[in-house]
Amino acid sequence: MNRKIVIFILGWVMTFLSGFLTLPCLVSLIYQEGEGTYFFVTALVAFICGRILTRKKPQKGQFYAKEGFISVALSWIVLSILGAIPLWMSGEIPHFIDALFEIVSGFTTTGASVVADVEALSHTALFWRSFSHWIGGMGVLVFMMAILPLVGGENIHLLRAESPGPIVSKLVPRMRKTAKILYVIYLGMTLLQIVLLICSGLPVFDSICMSLGTAGTGGFGLVADSATGYTVVQQVIITVFMLLFGVNFSFFYLILMRNIRGAFKIEEVRWYFALFGVSALLITIDLTKNVGDVLHNLNLATFQVASVMTTTGFATADFNLWPTFSKNILVMLMFVGACAGSTGGGIKVSRFIIYIKTTVKEIRHLIHPRSVKVVKLDDKTVSDETIRTTHMYLIVYMFIFVGSLAVVSLDKYDMVTNFTAIAATINNIGPGLEVAGPMGNYGGFSVLSKIVMILDMLIGRLEIFPLLILFSPSVWKWRNKKRCANGK
Amino acid sequence: MNRKIVIFILGWVMTFLSGFLTLPCLVSLIYQEGEGTYFFVTALVAFICGRILTRKKPQKGQFYAKEGFISVALSWIVLSILGAIPLWMSGEIPHFIDALFEIVSGFTTTGASVVADVEALSHTALFWRSFSHWIGGMGVLVFMMAILPLVGGENIHLLRAESPGPIVSKLVPRMRKTAKILYVIYLGMTLLQIVLLICSGLPVFDSICMSLGTAGTGGFGLVADSATGYTVVQQVIITVFMLLFGVNFSFFYLILMRNIRGAFKIEEVRWYFALFGVSALLITIDLTKNVGDVLHNLNLATFQVASVMTTTGFATADFNLWPTFSKNILVMLMFVGACAGSTGGGIKVSRFIIYIKTTVKEIRHLIHPRSVKVVKLDDKTVSDETIRTTHMYLIVYMFIFVGSLAVVSLDKYDMVTNFTAIAATINNIGPGLEVAGPMGNYGGFSVLSKIVMILDMLIGRLEIFPLLILFSPSVWKWRNKKRCANGK
Repeated sequence: MNRKIVIFILGWVMTFLSGFLTLPCLVSLIYQEGEGTYFFVTALVAFICGRILTRKKPQKGQFYAKEGFISVALSWIVLSILGAIPLWMSGEIPHFIDALFEIVSGFTTTGASVVADVEALSHTALFWRSFSHWIGGMGVLVFMMAILPLVGGENIHLLRAESPGPIVSKLVPRMRKTAKILYVIYLGMTLLQIVLLICSGLPVFDSICMSLGTAGTGGFGLVADSATGYTVVQQVIITVFMLLFGVNFSFFYLILMRNIRGAFKIEEVRWYFALFGVSALLITIDLTKNVGDVLHNLNLATFQVASVMTTTGFATADFNLWPTFSKNILVMLMFVGACAGSTGGGIKVSRFIIYIKTTVKEIRHLIHPRSVKVVKLDDKTVSDETIRTTHMYLIVYMFIFVGSLAVVSLDKYDMVTNFTAIAATINNIGPGLEVAGPMGNYGGFSVLSKIVMILDMLIGRLEIFPLLILFSPSVWKWRNKKRCANGK
Repeated sequence: MNRKIVIFILGWVMTFLSGFLTLPCLVSLIYQEGEGTYFFVTALVAFICGRILTRKKPQKGQFYAKEGFISVALSWIVLSILGAIPLWMSGEIPHFIDALFEIVSGFTTTGASVVADVEALSHTALFWRSFSHWIGGMGVLVFMMAILPLVGGENIHLLRAESPGPIVSKLVPRMRKTAKILYVIYLGMTLLQIVLLICSGLPVFDSICMSLGTAGTGGFGLVADSATGYTVVQQVIITVFMLLFGVNFSFFYLILMRNIRGAFKIEEVRWYFALFGVSALLITIDLTKNVGDVLHNLNLATFQVASVMTTTGFATADFNLWPTFSKNILVMLMFVGACAGSTGGGIKVSRFIIYIKTTVKEIRHLIHPRSVKVVKLDDKTVSDETIRTTHMYLIVYMFIFVGSLAVVSLDKYDMVTNFTAIAATINNIGPGLEVAGPMGNYGGFSVLSKIVMILDMLIGRLEIFPLLILFSPSVWKWRNKKRCANGK
């Protein structure tokens, strides 16, 4: 393995993190909070370590998928540990594992919190939590790529490993330009939401934090009841932006290129909006059967469906108290998730399209064995290799899910709490049901369960394989062999 | 499609069913119960219809996988409807959908009951319920195959469609002989269990019914508390036989051939026993942490793990009250199920072996892209086609599961009841948790939910595709086209 370049990339990740950390320092200065010191010290340490590791650029060497996966996995782990330190040192989250859980939840855009009393956190910490969503949403390595002239070959492998979805669509042939366009769209839409929220009367700080959380499809709120206390206009703004940030970013690129028809022809985007519409409608009907007027319920349903489908995790109601059918739809949507190439998590709409299309193909094949039909997505044939890896994805996902569930069920909680807690972390949503519900928090889980959920959040955000490869013995066996060979 | 031969096969299924129905008539005579009349009339009607449909043997024609699937699916539907009639007409189960649910649960070896007061049923009905497990366990078309000299070609397609597992292993080259050997082993082991239970002091009627239910891995009990009231010896006998009937029957064939080493070399059988051992051990520890002595808990755990893994569904304890971790293991085992080529249900151990092995292969492939490794089972390479269909199986299974869950969640029950009710029916187990738990029943579900679960039980027993193909529009579209063509 090309260790030098992996370390070089890690160095740059640290350097960038130190840059990111200056923003909470600024917030600290504005609100004159002492917590800023810890952020400043962490930033300094990260900067020095980063500069040391990036002193000299390694010569070109092999950099394949494996190196891409390992770089991304290690980057996210380093990012999480460094990001947790100021939260922990400042005493805002007294236990390290809790602080790590919180910031991994932030970077992975999950939004599951261990903090019972969110209102007691400093502005600095609140901002850092929300800002971590924004950083993690589009990906820190994608950001690096947009800024740094990294040597050519590795870019595609890094983008593949960090970007979600079964097929990585390059917007333009050059990786670096793709990364730049992605971040310009991302930043532009975030700013638009901030402005709209400020216009709607939300305080500036809240508008910024909520927009960062929406953009990254994160979900950390600023108050314990999430967005319940917001006005209807503010809730609708957030609903619309959640939905938008769950869309495949190719859609926005095509719209920017004035190819409106092309944008709306993207199959995944159509399915995504259709699924949103049907789910919101069904839940509105189900809620209205019980209590309340249609418009109020429509607002609740659209907000919650958008929040869960895009894996954001804000709440305007305690959906834990909703009827079983509605809860069931929400739990199903947790697994579907958002579009590939968005900031959202979950298994992704495009994977489900492939699952549905291969199912139809399989049945056709059994009925007419000699018929040859290919699976198409956006009029392009999906290769057998993509189908195979997409199927494998679900199977490995299932194993990780079940294994995590087994460990977490050692805790004292009921089955619904356990199941939805794993679903909400591995799919990067945030709130589950019962104890892990929108009005609850993850503080009561055991340390072991928290570690499992930390791994699940990372696995969900990085789409399984980077972490699996990092922890795969054969990677390290190989390294030892190499070391022995070098020692000869 | 070759409709004539499908109708011919359906005719034979009715004829055989009339034969099966004479046994409950006999029970009715012994216990002098009036219910026997309804069984006799149904048998007569089935016999007459059967003879009419089998009057003349159709000429040889095409009989491929599609015809195999459709014959098997239709056979099971006819079997279920005819089997439900006496239960319904005699008034023992007053609603037809309930009676259909009960007998589908019987034939598919599920053992989920809508009857709240089992003790109130007549001996005739109790026997018919248990006997339906035995008929469905090995399969009625396999039975036909063992007895009838059906023309060559179709046998393999029928066996494939009715036998569980990703790969159908023929014990001997000739299908008919394979079917015969299977039934001889099946009958022999059932008789052995009956004798052992009688020796242990269980009344003859109970011994017969419980053995029929164990052999088919069904699970209908004779009393509301299932096997809770039995002696430890009786419980251990049932545990051992449940485990044995969940083993791939190739195992017994090899043992009969005195190839003991070969028998224990079957990978699926090793994994099956390992999974049983580990699960039973973990649950014993979990239970003992709470209450009770080790040996007592070991008996409870082994019984329940064997019951759930083999998808039988008997109970010696209300495991609904067990700690979450133990319940969780049981729910996971519900999905794994028994070995392929056994009478048990679930996804099957061998499919999981393939899932695990392809996962390992996938990770290896990502680390060393140029390495070519094949997946092996019992030292034989598993073909890409088998891997593909095994993966497809899980995906289609998941869609059916989620769809069923959505419909059932319209009922008034909680999420755990709904989830485990679907898991317990689609995997042919019987009891789930909460309302659908071992001490509960399925009587309270709506008619719609019951219909969904009836379909799920059939889908589970026939491993999805026969029913999917039967309900696939393209089969019937094709038929209409043919009809039009004939009409010209």
